[in-house]
Amino acid sequence: MTYLAPHTTPLSRAAMALPENPLRALYPLAARDGMISLANGHPSPDACDHVGLRDALDAAAADPMAWRYGPTAGDPRLRRALAHLSGDQPDSVIVTSGAQQGIDLAIRTLCDPGDTVLVPEALYPATLSVLAACGVTAHPVREDAGGLCLNALEQAIQDSKARALYLTPTFGNPTGSVLSEDRRGALLALCARTGVLVIEDDPYRDLWFDAPPPPSLWEMAGACGARVIALRSCSKSIAPGLRIGWMLATSDLTPHITALKQASDLQSSGTAQMTVLAYLSSGRFDDWLVKARALYRARHDALREGLVEAGFDVPAVTGGMFLWARLPKHIDTARLFETAVAQGVLYAPGAAFDASGQGGEIALYARFCFASNDVKSLKQATDRLAQAARLSA
Amino acid sequence: MTYLAPHTTPLSRAAMALPENPLRALYPLAARDGMISLANGHPSPDACDHVGLRDALDAAAADPMAWRYGPTAGDPRLRRALAHLSGDQPDSVIVTSGAQQGIDLAIRTLCDPGDTVLVPEALYPATLSVLAACGVTAHPVREDAGGLCLNALEQAIQDSKARALYLTPTFGNPTGSVLSEDRRGALLALCARTGVLVIEDDPYRDLWFDAPPPPSLWEMAGACGARVIALRSCSKSIAPGLRIGWMLATSDLTPHITALKQASDLQSSGTAQMTVLAYLSSGRFDDWLVKARALYRARHDALREGLVEAGFDVPAVTGGMFLWARLPKHIDTARLFETAVAQGVLYAPGAAFDASGQGGEIALYARFCFASNDVKSLKQATDRLAQAARLSA
Repeated sequence: MTYLAPHTTPLSRAAMALPENPLRALYPLAARDGMISLANGHPSPDACDHVGLRDALDAAAADPMAWRYGPTAGDPRLRRALAHLSGDQPDSVIVTSGAQQGIDLAIRTLCDPGDTVLVPEALYPATLSVLAACGVTAHPVREDAGGLCLNALEQAIQDSKARALYLTPTFGNPTGSVLSEDRRGALLALCARTGVLVIEDDPYRDLWFDAPPPPSLWEMAGACGARVIALRSCSKSIAPGLRIGWMLATSDLTPHITALKQASDLQSSGTAQMTVLAYLSSGRFDDWLVKARALYRARHDALREGLVEAGFDVPAVTGGMFLWARLPKHIDTARLFETAVAQGVLYAPGAAFDASGQGGEIALYARFCFASNDVKSLKQATDRLAQAARLSA
Repeated sequence: MTYLAPHTTPLSRAAMALPENPLRALYPLAARDGMISLANGHPSPDACDHVGLRDALDAAAADPMAWRYGPTAGDPRLRRALAHLSGDQPDSVIVTSGAQQGIDLAIRTLCDPGDTVLVPEALYPATLSVLAACGVTAHPVREDAGGLCLNALEQAIQDSKARALYLTPTFGNPTGSVLSEDRRGALLALCARTGVLVIEDDPYRDLWFDAPPPPSLWEMAGACGARVIALRSCSKSIAPGLRIGWMLATSDLTPHITALKQASDLQSSGTAQMTVLAYLSSGRFDDWLVKARALYRARHDALREGLVEAGFDVPAVTGGMFLWARLPKHIDTARLFETAVAQGVLYAPGAAFDASGQGGEIALYARFCFASNDVKSLKQATDRLAQAARLSA
């Protein structure tokens, strides 16, 4: 019999390998008195339709399915309502506990430990956590201002023998970039030709400023012969606390994804599902989106103007929640972050998004969220940043 | 470059290995007109405190944390309230998306693919799904009327070199058995001596009839030098649709479990968390439990009486939701199940709980839930079962 020391708990390799999400690690700093946080991708509380959501909760309370066990793939009425949003078939929809669960389920459905997944070189850190938890290697692919570079992608497919590509082609996190329709088509054709399945993480697509973004990879997949799993979210457009997202997948995959979801959490919260159903049924969502787009557009403009004045190099974006800025030249990035925190402003350092884990160029960037604060606070934040930049020069 | 056939999606070994949960597969049968289902472990809708829950939703709607992102381990106020229920420290509590997520997180924190976990020979099928999804082998341990047999457990530890033991020591699922305090102590001492961590799945412990069950393994662990992760649930005592459970773990494990939960779903639904917090704060929970215990006790007695009359061999239980019955002798079990369905009564065949996957004796048993139906329906159900038994003899 093997006798282990009684106080040694053996951990799985996944648990030992799992990095802390560097953005969630900023929460205590964000909670400091007087801190203005541009660090996290949190929708603005004043852009939340509290009146509509309170009515929706009221309606949910009267629905038996708010309280009982229901189907793993989600309440059929909610699946229909979500499918209707994107013109899809309800059978393609699996309701998830936030889009984060969608990332986890997609990776676990497709990948074994030791496999490789292609990712943009600047990557949402919680995706990196999923890959680490599944023992899957992230293979970074170069990006330019228009998103993933296709030459680099083709080379990476050759080098890595990856099973899947994960990306956020619309208002990317952290870069805010949008893949053009042409590049989408070429990317899908390449993935179809090489048998790489595409995981399209798409939580921001409703938050455009002037014009809707190009069609989703999910919509274009059929015409290109490509395989796509799409992840959608209520977190950025209704309320993140609900923890309701959904996946769109083809019928060869939905039974496997559903079985894995069943093992993970049986089903998503019925209370939250019925609230989303009631909210979508109320007819308030479209009006709210119009308001949110105008609000976020004004905030984008204010934040960008302030960052440019503070010496940052900041391309404008056309929607989403983020600006991806190159720091003023000749500045020590670690010192700037510390000085900014001391001045009362928080942002997400570029290194937090480093898919390669090897640093370099990305440490000269930072992600700023324009969604969470009003214009007045954003101006105050960029004044503080300008001061921090002067002190760090 | 590897060219795959464009319509072949490679699946992970986990996705391919994952069995369908045989109990959830019964849902369509349960939904048939006129069917009385004793198959699933669903709390009775008429034992749900709808008035209290509606008030709790109302209170939740006014709480900003119902709508915003919050901490991964759960809202601090809810962690305090849940810790208070069992006299624990809030730091030991991690709020989960149902206890099912707790099983998944515990296994992923402790086990690598290829590892072995010890389980009771009659096992909750969704635990088997988690093990399959994680590439972990289930090693069944023999049980008697008093739960897990310690001689068999000691032998299984020697044979398997397992890292962990999973069990439901209190009102077990499916058997309803309760491990005595003595056997708990001996089990913990054995696991402490051999370095086996114990995962205590404990969703039913509030649902006792005449007297509270023995202390939990979690409570007894310290005195025995054993390591325990405990899983608790609001699904059986408040409402399953909320999908709120919690884990209790020691401080060497909580950061790793929290990091894995973050990768899985960032956090559990804030809407559901704030509803549970408001409900626990309302002071209605204790009164409701008193009512639920009386209701379930009466239903237990009615179901057991009817099953005995129908020729089943059914030990009484002292709480929980289930009776584990040996079918009348000389009956073809497959034929009985079909005939019962035709007569309009559904139960969970013993084979659904077969941890060995090799059949045998367990196919002569069946699980009957006494919680979901009122006494009148239970009597009707056992009349139909008696008829089915006659037709199958």
